[in-house]
Amino acid sequence: MSSTNRQFVLASRPTGLPEESTFKMIETPIPASKDGEFLARAMYLSVDPYMRGRISQARSYAQPVEVGGVMVGGGVARVVESKNSNFAVGDIVDVYMGWQEYIVSNGKGVRKLDPSIAPVSTALGVLGITGLTAYFGLLDICHPKAGETVVVSGAAGAVGSIVGQIAKIKGCHSVGIAGDDDKIAWILKDCSYDAAFNYKTEGNYSAKLKQLCPKGIDVYFDNVGGALTDAVLMQLNTFARVSICGQISQYNNAAPEMGPRLLGMLIVARAKMQGFLVSDYAPRFGEALVEMAGWLREGKLKYREDIIDGFENMPKAFIGLFHGDNTGKRLVRIPE
Amino acid sequence: MSSTNRQFVLASRPTGLPEESTFKMIETPIPASKDGEFLARAMYLSVDPYMRGRISQARSYAQPVEVGGVMVGGGVARVVESKNSNFAVGDIVDVYMGWQEYIVSNGKGVRKLDPSIAPVSTALGVLGITGLTAYFGLLDICHPKAGETVVVSGAAGAVGSIVGQIAKIKGCHSVGIAGDDDKIAWILKDCSYDAAFNYKTEGNYSAKLKQLCPKGIDVYFDNVGGALTDAVLMQLNTFARVSICGQISQYNNAAPEMGPRLLGMLIVARAKMQGFLVSDYAPRFGEALVEMAGWLREGKLKYREDIIDGFENMPKAFIGLFHGDNTGKRLVRIPE
Repeated sequence: MSSTNRQFVLASRPTGLPEESTFKMIETPIPASKDGEFLARAMYLSVDPYMRGRISQARSYAQPVEVGGVMVGGGVARVVESKNSNFAVGDIVDVYMGWQEYIVSNGKGVRKLDPSIAPVSTALGVLGITGLTAYFGLLDICHPKAGETVVVSGAAGAVGSIVGQIAKIKGCHSVGIAGDDDKIAWILKDCSYDAAFNYKTEGNYSAKLKQLCPKGIDVYFDNVGGALTDAVLMQLNTFARVSICGQISQYNNAAPEMGPRLLGMLIVARAKMQGFLVSDYAPRFGEALVEMAGWLREGKLKYREDIIDGFENMPKAFIGLFHGDNTGKRLVRIPE
Repeated sequence: MSSTNRQFVLASRPTGLPEESTFKMIETPIPASKDGEFLARAMYLSVDPYMRGRISQARSYAQPVEVGGVMVGGGVARVVESKNSNFAVGDIVDVYMGWQEYIVSNGKGVRKLDPSIAPVSTALGVLGITGLTAYFGLLDICHPKAGETVVVSGAAGAVGSIVGQIAKIKGCHSVGIAGDDDKIAWILKDCSYDAAFNYKTEGNYSAKLKQLCPKGIDVYFDNVGGALTDAVLMQLNTFARVSICGQISQYNNAAPEMGPRLLGMLIVARAKMQGFLVSDYAPRFGEALVEMAGWLREGKLKYREDIIDGFENMPKAFIGLFHGDNTGKRLVRIPE
């Protein structure tokens, strides 16, 4: 066991796209656990688009990380020392530990993982916040019905790649939008998407959507925002439902980008558009994970992890999310 | 009884704001009623912002009026001839008759009015589609709770002037936005608004909203759209609800106006935004009208009619809606 805890702190508040220098790696002593606590060492750390909001001063749903503070985020860690009878050395846990190698916890909000159910890394993906985001954002906000058309932006991302599969499980026609031909090939092959297109090479979103959604769009799960979303809103069916999960195309704008005012389309379609945070569904995580684990076991749910090795690569892994570098859930693996 | 039926037909499809020449008055013979039908003569005809959508070729929820076709719209009319046993000469009815003086109807979709309940003109306003729009758009889309803050744009309009009063009946803090000092004075005095401001003379919507909504905004009933709506969206509370009833600031734009992309605010606030059409609530009109008539009787609901005399003034009355000429429900009265 190394004697220091490497951490990434916020070096400065970025304007626009974060750079590696936005973060600074520091070394601190490994924290000591007190009675009732345990010490765990990271195995996998998560990087997610929402973290952009945490390093911004713009209004958000959570307090921002202070300059000099350790970056926040989820992790899967192994207990290496325990003074808490509920956690034994060797236990693997899902813990909101931030961008660091070690965490001391009293166990509150910590989920113990069973490696026999699925690889423990899935606790940060399909069987974790990512999968739950897909689950509640699609099922609870949009109530997709068999035969309906579901369009998903960011369809090869951590959340989008799961949304298409849940839509398919519910009997929908699923149409994915992503920014790379390999991603398109993957979501068509492995993520149950019935149709998909590459928005980076498609010149006319509206025409393409019309072609791939001949019966119009009943449900839209938006991870991206911007011009793609404009095009979808123009083709919503009556009583359509739109889940605003993310707006990754907008997160790095210092001021809001301008776009056409389309709220009138919500009247034309009598459509609903709703933003959500998966954390609001915490009381129902258990039931959802049981259902998701069942689908995984039955082979109805596939997932892909985009793993980058080495704690020192956290900033690079994170920044790449905004370039669309990842396919599926991006994780950073911390070698033993 | 005159021997001709005056009608307004659509002369040409307008680009931008309609002009009087957009419509053309013609005279046709008074139609004859057959067995099972009645003939009625207009007493009041309604002009409403939604009619702008009916003379546009842009996608809408209803077929547009064809060039040369009679303009659509609601009316209150008196039966002058009847071959239908359910309707007697002298009965007063609420009938979707269009911009014309006479209508022949088989009675389907026609509501017989009881003048002892309220003046029959209210069937086009507070006890008609307008009032129902306020009722369902506020109560069914937004579920306002006592103590919450409800903001209404177009607050002195036919719908908005009722929304504020229903919000007050439900125990909310109601804040109205309108475009004229006399309107502001009226909604504060008669429409139960706790606070209001004139957006035409207020330079900083955000600061004004912060001042008048110290606890943030829980519910927004939008009749207007545009920059006002942007300012409100930036101040939505967690789990806020936004009812998109109208976008009158946008109806006359040939192409969508540009504005800041703010869908990310829906995530921050976990807010819902929903467009609706009152016609979707038709099965519940009865129950709602009973409740509204009760409030009217108890003096909890006040209304104002903005009456213009003379069938020939239909186009002028309609176009004035887009200049904010009306306070309360605008009607055209057809002299006997």
